[in-house]
Amino acid sequence: MLPSLVPADLRRVRFDDRFWAPRIEVNRAATLPIEYEQCLKTGRIDAFRLNWKPGQPNPPHIFWDSDVAKWVEAAAYSLATHPDPALDAQLDGVIALIASAQQPDGYLNCHYTVVAPGKRWTNLRDCHELYCAGHLIEASVAHFRATGKRTLLDVMCRYADHIDSVFGRAKGKKRGYCGHEEIELALVKLHAATGNKRYLRLAKYFVDERGRKPYYYDAESRARGEDPMTNRHRKGDEPYSYCHAHMPVRQQREVTGHAVRAMYLYTAMADLAGAYGDRELLTACRALWDHLTLKRIYVTAGVGPTASNEGFSFDYDLPNESAYAESCAAIGLVFWADRMLRLERDARYADVMETALYNGAISGVSLDGRKFFYVNPLASAGRHHRQDWFGCACCPPNIARLLASLGGYACSQEADAAWVHLYAQGRAELEVAGVPVEIIQKTEYPWDGLVRLIVRPDRPARFTLALRIPGWCRGAKLSVNGKPVALARIVRKGYAHVERRWMPGDVVTLDLPMPVERIEANPEVRQDCGRVALRRGPVVYCLEQVDNGPRLNDIVLPRDAALKAVFRPDLLGGVAVITGRASRRRLSGWSGSLYRPENARYDNVAITAVPYCVWDNRVAGEMAVWLISSPG
Amino acid sequence: MLPSLVPADLRRVRFDDRFWAPRIEVNRAATLPIEYEQCLKTGRIDAFRLNWKPGQPNPPHIFWDSDVAKWVEAAAYSLATHPDPALDAQLDGVIALIASAQQPDGYLNCHYTVVAPGKRWTNLRDCHELYCAGHLIEASVAHFRATGKRTLLDVMCRYADHIDSVFGRAKGKKRGYCGHEEIELALVKLHAATGNKRYLRLAKYFVDERGRKPYYYDAESRARGEDPMTNRHRKGDEPYSYCHAHMPVRQQREVTGHAVRAMYLYTAMADLAGAYGDRELLTACRALWDHLTLKRIYVTAGVGPTASNEGFSFDYDLPNESAYAESCAAIGLVFWADRMLRLERDARYADVMETALYNGAISGVSLDGRKFFYVNPLASAGRHHRQDWFGCACCPPNIARLLASLGGYACSQEADAAWVHLYAQGRAELEVAGVPVEIIQKTEYPWDGLVRLIVRPDRPARFTLALRIPGWCRGAKLSVNGKPVALARIVRKGYAHVERRWMPGDVVTLDLPMPVERIEANPEVRQDCGRVALRRGPVVYCLEQVDNGPRLNDIVLPRDAALKAVFRPDLLGGVAVITGRASRRRLSGWSGSLYRPENARYDNVAITAVPYCVWDNRVAGEMAVWLISSPG
Repeated sequence: MLPSLVPADLRRVRFDDRFWAPRIEVNRAATLPIEYEQCLKTGRIDAFRLNWKPGQPNPPHIFWDSDVAKWVEAAAYSLATHPDPALDAQLDGVIALIASAQQPDGYLNCHYTVVAPGKRWTNLRDCHELYCAGHLIEASVAHFRATGKRTLLDVMCRYADHIDSVFGRAKGKKRGYCGHEEIELALVKLHAATGNKRYLRLAKYFVDERGRKPYYYDAESRARGEDPMTNRHRKGDEPYSYCHAHMPVRQQREVTGHAVRAMYLYTAMADLAGAYGDRELLTACRALWDHLTLKRIYVTAGVGPTASNEGFSFDYDLPNESAYAESCAAIGLVFWADRMLRLERDARYADVMETALYNGAISGVSLDGRKFFYVNPLASAGRHHRQDWFGCACCPPNIARLLASLGGYACSQEADAAWVHLYAQGRAELEVAGVPVEIIQKTEYPWDGLVRLIVRPDRPARFTLALRIPGWCRGAKLSVNGKPVALARIVRKGYAHVERRWMPGDVVTLDLPMPVERIEANPEVRQDCGRVALRRGPVVYCLEQVDNGPRLNDIVLPRDAALKAVFRPDLLGGVAVITGRASRRRLSGWSGSLYRPENARYDNVAITAVPYCVWDNRVAGEMAVWLISSPG
Repeated sequence: MLPSLVPADLRRVRFDDRFWAPRIEVNRAATLPIEYEQCLKTGRIDAFRLNWKPGQPNPPHIFWDSDVAKWVEAAAYSLATHPDPALDAQLDGVIALIASAQQPDGYLNCHYTVVAPGKRWTNLRDCHELYCAGHLIEASVAHFRATGKRTLLDVMCRYADHIDSVFGRAKGKKRGYCGHEEIELALVKLHAATGNKRYLRLAKYFVDERGRKPYYYDAESRARGEDPMTNRHRKGDEPYSYCHAHMPVRQQREVTGHAVRAMYLYTAMADLAGAYGDRELLTACRALWDHLTLKRIYVTAGVGPTASNEGFSFDYDLPNESAYAESCAAIGLVFWADRMLRLERDARYADVMETALYNGAISGVSLDGRKFFYVNPLASAGRHHRQDWFGCACCPPNIARLLASLGGYACSQEADAAWVHLYAQGRAELEVAGVPVEIIQKTEYPWDGLVRLIVRPDRPARFTLALRIPGWCRGAKLSVNGKPVALARIVRKGYAHVERRWMPGDVVTLDLPMPVERIEANPEVRQDCGRVALRRGPVVYCLEQVDNGPRLNDIVLPRDAALKAVFRPDLLGGVAVITGRASRRRLSGWSGSLYRPENARYDNVAITAVPYCVWDNRVAGEMAVWLISSPG
């Protein structure tokens, strides 16, 4: 076992800021009820009644269970921070229904029980059976932790026991693993909640078995009477790299295939590296992390550029308008970053986590919590908009569970140190050196970089307060009770380690200068050549047509343009916008042609950039993150 | 009937230049034999033996007949300019095989005869039945014109008679039309070859019936027991706009749907506008032309930007790397431009035709005539290459028939005028004012803009020589027998009309200045903002990695860069290249990050641009047409 940071107890973290607190409240008050209604009206909840009969319309789909599970998980997290008897009762009802669908042997899957009885575990590659189990397990752990109730937890332990009896290396067991990773990280959580090692071992089995030859999916296909080569993911140089089963995972060094699946797998790999002290697995995680963050991630921390496989293509291929960058993938990246951070205590993981949270993940839901992006492009010609729901509805409840559990990512603790990863006004209670410690943040972050942290141990105690110095920040300053502390001496791997005997009411002031920055992409990213993105602190900006008129791709930002951040309390729930002067080609003179010898005339334009994450919350129109940068 | 220009007799035009003559020879000597072999080895030719039986592999596909037909057509054109007894005999053999597949009632289609007997004409929307007939008809006319033989022509007249007995508005006939337009323009040719008005009327019926409500394809689907709404092209605001059947064609004003089908339809519309003096149809053609050329065409004259429908998307949507721009569509555009030019005598049609010929069409075949592009992007990350053949093999024989019949597009004639549309060293024999007139061109066009035309009427005669002044040209000069002629007074719709009593040996000298030009796209084309393309004369240029190293998208061309054209006889069969100085960001300093605050350092680079049409003839690598343009 590797020593790991322990996340703050979700129930002990409160946001009281202008960015997250309203999002969390909207999530609770609007998104969760909407998602329940959608699950209800589309038949996803009633599917657990198992009364669908062949010939009837709307058969339970292979991934429906997971949608309901993620809603249960999100609702449980919400209960953890916001007691709500009505929601508690609603959850009890849904959980009773789920429990009622469990078969005598512990098996629990609506689709296979009523639509394809007798076909259990015959198509792990495509049919999401273990994936659904994983989400139900995560839900059961969340519900148990939030409420102390074992109603769903016991059901899922029985199911996990059943799964453990079916899969493994012992004679007579299936040596399979799910085409859509998820159950691996869920089993780690189930182990943590129950202490039952069986679940951890099963997670390890699923991770280690993955990608061994001969390919399980080949045999499985043939057992169904199908030629494995007819599967498009079987072809090519790396068979099954779509689902990361092209080679044993601990040999993998490149992020490939379906992005959400990848993030869930890598999360479990990091979990298991920690749980087993498995340095080989950790080495694979680090290599995959480097590959992702140096060659395959958007500036918004969106991941997976292409719709063709909902995932990765090739190095530096990061198209903007056709970016897939699924909301779920950015959320999965938060999970993975969190796990790496726990093990590595390195701010580079927290930096990516923060970028995903403020940009590519939260962009997935509208400010009113009622509409969702499945896909998060970095440019739009005006035809991309959030929707009420999706046939494949993984993203909306995924965003809901992320927002409802956000506190778990902000701070963490270990024996002799309290760690602060995310800055936001609010408070967290940790336990360090055997002493309860409350940490209160006073800040306008992310709109301002000044953060005051009031440290309140129950009694004076010596420990380290580890404060993240964001990777985007240059010139950070820190003082304790007004006395400057030289950061150079105490920063390790991006965290300022302030060790002292803390007295109740000690105040740490962190000043993180937050200028508007013009970001360039590595020249290998061909889609961003000649362009810059605007970033301030952790927030990536974009232009929207509603503020800037059309033809955003033609706006030229002179290299010496003065760019100013202004907080606009009235706009988009209160955001800092970036304003400046730029130019755009004049349209006049173009009536009779599509091409002409270069003869550009420019008009000056005032530009207003808004945070990327809040685009498409007003009038529909164009959007652009990357703007032409001109030396002139 | 509208007075039309009459194309030069293909047999009376000879190219003797460095651009087309080698292409035509390679087409004859390499491409035609290769395509025959491919048709043979893939079973396309033997399919006409009608001996495929259910259960056997490789059933004749619905569009196979058309591939063989286009090869026959191309081979026939080749015979017209290059007598070749072996090819003649080979053609006779293939034609005998085709004829043997004709059914007693005249019907002729391999797929339906052996694979789906009894299902004739039940799925016009999807199954290319009339499309195949159209290509066979075109082939029959080409063969007849080249050889005087009626072997295939008579077969196809019987088939066309049969089709005419099946389709039409009379009681008991099917009121259908083909999902893939083609037969319409073919029937116009059959009428021209035979004088039989029946074929012209049938073409008119197919064109006029198209898009009427209720939709024929709805009824046809229901007759097959299918819900029409399950067809993806039925959905949306403009049902069947994919195949231009959303409204009657004479009401159409926007180019939509599948690009190749569109070009073939518009060609037939122009044909019929001329044949019937149908000004309403001509008005539609003009509007569609304007829409295409002002909003939906690439600088290479590629058309149809998206793979999703192999066609048009929305105005100004012209992505470069993902451009579809099918070779067949650029070829179809040549057909349409040719027909519009015949009617309108306006150089704007010839300008587009020339752009397509020198760029987006001829790019479809390698210099050695052995490899083909189906798709012609304007940028490549290095993964797009010509192939030997395609499962859907429309493009290779389409390019072959275009090259083999190129002479037909160069010049034309009418009672009192000889027209020269394309400049290339060679000779053409026309008949004007009742006098045979030979026009000899001496020029290095397109590598140099100086053209000497030697006019040799059989005897002195008064007529007009109409010479195209290309739209790309500014400052053209013309002289007759050394005496300057003021162009302003004699240029109408882009043609210099030189009227005089021509004596054998009169020399017209046309000087078309051909500087290197930086072309900008309309600011609405978001994919080209901040960028320029290089063009010289009719030739669009690109950068290739083999000449310029990698990261072509990052190359910055200063607005004041001196760009020079140099003819390189040793390169790519002899081309003018464009050289100049530019800059590119330095890669050093980027090892540890994918994004950073803008801090670009530039290296100077010497660039060499080659004609777009010859890219991917050397080492595989990146390619880019649009380069960053910097004011600095």
